[in-house]
Amino acid sequence: MTNPSPSIDMRAPTREGVLRAAEKIAALLPQTPLLPLEIPGGETVWCKAESLQPVGAFKIRGAWHRQTDLSEDERARGVVAVSSGNHAQGVAWAARRLGIAAKIVMPIDAPAVKLDATRALGAGVVLYDRPGGEDRDALAARLTAESGATLVHAYGDPWVIEGQGSSGVELAAQMERLAGGQPTRVVTPCGGGGLTSGLALALPDTEIVPVEPEGWDDVTRSLASGTIERVGPGAPATACDALQTPATFPINFAVMTSRGLRGMSVSESEVRAAQRYAFTKLRLVVEPGGAAALAAVLAGKAAADGRTAIILSGGNVDPATFAAVISGA
Amino acid sequence: MTNPSPSIDMRAPTREGVLRAAEKIAALLPQTPLLPLEIPGGETVWCKAESLQPVGAFKIRGAWHRQTDLSEDERARGVVAVSSGNHAQGVAWAARRLGIAAKIVMPIDAPAVKLDATRALGAGVVLYDRPGGEDRDALAARLTAESGATLVHAYGDPWVIEGQGSSGVELAAQMERLAGGQPTRVVTPCGGGGLTSGLALALPDTEIVPVEPEGWDDVTRSLASGTIERVGPGAPATACDALQTPATFPINFAVMTSRGLRGMSVSESEVRAAQRYAFTKLRLVVEPGGAAALAAVLAGKAAADGRTAIILSGGNVDPATFAAVISGA
Repeated sequence: MTNPSPSIDMRAPTREGVLRAAEKIAALLPQTPLLPLEIPGGETVWCKAESLQPVGAFKIRGAWHRQTDLSEDERARGVVAVSSGNHAQGVAWAARRLGIAAKIVMPIDAPAVKLDATRALGAGVVLYDRPGGEDRDALAARLTAESGATLVHAYGDPWVIEGQGSSGVELAAQMERLAGGQPTRVVTPCGGGGLTSGLALALPDTEIVPVEPEGWDDVTRSLASGTIERVGPGAPATACDALQTPATFPINFAVMTSRGLRGMSVSESEVRAAQRYAFTKLRLVVEPGGAAALAAVLAGKAAADGRTAIILSGGNVDPATFAAVISGA
Repeated sequence: MTNPSPSIDMRAPTREGVLRAAEKIAALLPQTPLLPLEIPGGETVWCKAESLQPVGAFKIRGAWHRQTDLSEDERARGVVAVSSGNHAQGVAWAARRLGIAAKIVMPIDAPAVKLDATRALGAGVVLYDRPGGEDRDALAARLTAESGATLVHAYGDPWVIEGQGSSGVELAAQMERLAGGQPTRVVTPCGGGGLTSGLALALPDTEIVPVEPEGWDDVTRSLASGTIERVGPGAPATACDALQTPATFPINFAVMTSRGLRGMSVSESEVRAAQRYAFTKLRLVVEPGGAAALAAVLAGKAAADGRTAIILSGGNVDPATFAAVISGA
């Protein structure tokens, strides 16, 4: 299962595509802020608060770029997506805005806030059981085959990659204005590698550092070995639901390896500490997966200087979960 | 005690001063975002997230405008402020940046996050007991008399009013860009009236609606009666520590009455509901007082249209308090 469904157009994503996506996004949405954050030791880094997007995550970017490029005929047949919740909301938000019917395949254990928000955006939700049960990609392939809908894959899609990369275009301009130069490094949460490969295209002269939860570090291992590795069946539980992807896709891997990226992983307690830091110092609600990159910087695993950007990729978290985290439980 | 300490320069604040403050702030800090928010009923309003300022509140604006206008000699003698915590951090932040010694008079029951953050910014903190004990303004007057320091009053100061008004200049430009016109209405949390009077100067053609906690609605009553009213000795407990001011000052009242403003108040449960709404829909940490204006809109007390702006004035709240609020306790 390292190949996407045949309905995905496998053209390579391009930097030109990223710039075109950035123009579309600029016409649609306010820029998310790039917020200064003093970290222990005194350095100031810059946090790109993608958690402040209307759906609470950067996923709105790729979903918009993909669906606005569909033909009238394709729009009429609808879209299908697979997602634990953030891509779901991105696709549903864009689909509603464009009058496209959306069907989203979601795991039965997705956070309630994500399930509720996706339904509230008017999408049809099809639940699957995460371990065992029908393979989620197979389920999505069946749905697209039945209806002729377009699959908007969460990461293995050139439009989605380009759309997510638009965050890099934005942050580069903001860094120039606020810190007087281009970003030296962007540290980013990494699930399937859609955002990571988009940033790599957007910022050819910037170090891109993908961060994964411990035990879900398939991208880190793949980048080290030079071949796509999968998350093992005995992977540990993680609070980072948004980063629980079994393997990256060739379309993402090709971009990441062409840039020679190196990844890293963070522990569950490092993630919780980062969520608390964002609560206290930035007054932001960041979900576990969204805090992974900040966790790597705070733990001293990722280097940081005055032109380092950290992506806070999402903020959709159940209140009880967040209450427990900030209470130090 | 409706008169400020004699050390406050009582020139009237001006719209030109607001515009000058806005220029200074634009050169110093990233703009806080104006975020779209769909409210029940389907209308989209716009939230100015001042909780995302480096000190977690708009107070950094007035503190910066005031202290950058001090002479070298005045800077050398230091500044004194009285605050429950947000103005404290604003003054301390600006003072540290400018190399000015700051002494802040704070209530002993201020949220721990606010006390800790003020100290961490290098300010000297002098505690007082809120009910009984030495009057806080008298204490501040004694400190300024002793040292020759400048009192940076939390609201009864022309520079502070102008500085807070710079948020209105920012949001008007953002509203024009994002919603295609000037704001029809700005709903704002109101303590002593510094922000409210600043907004009134900044936006002469926009309705400004100050919102106070129930029982602490001295500004609302003052605007209705035409004379400055005080909060009574039996005022109820409120979670809105940032809005617990006994009375507005003539310098604020003059601006507010010249614009014919009308205020309103919100209940504690309406404030908590607004904090929860901001958590879920905006992924923002908003403190009780910071959520008062949103509470008024969500409760249907303040009118809302597609060019209504809501100030989310601050986000400094203890984790345990916030955890209880989002858990629905």
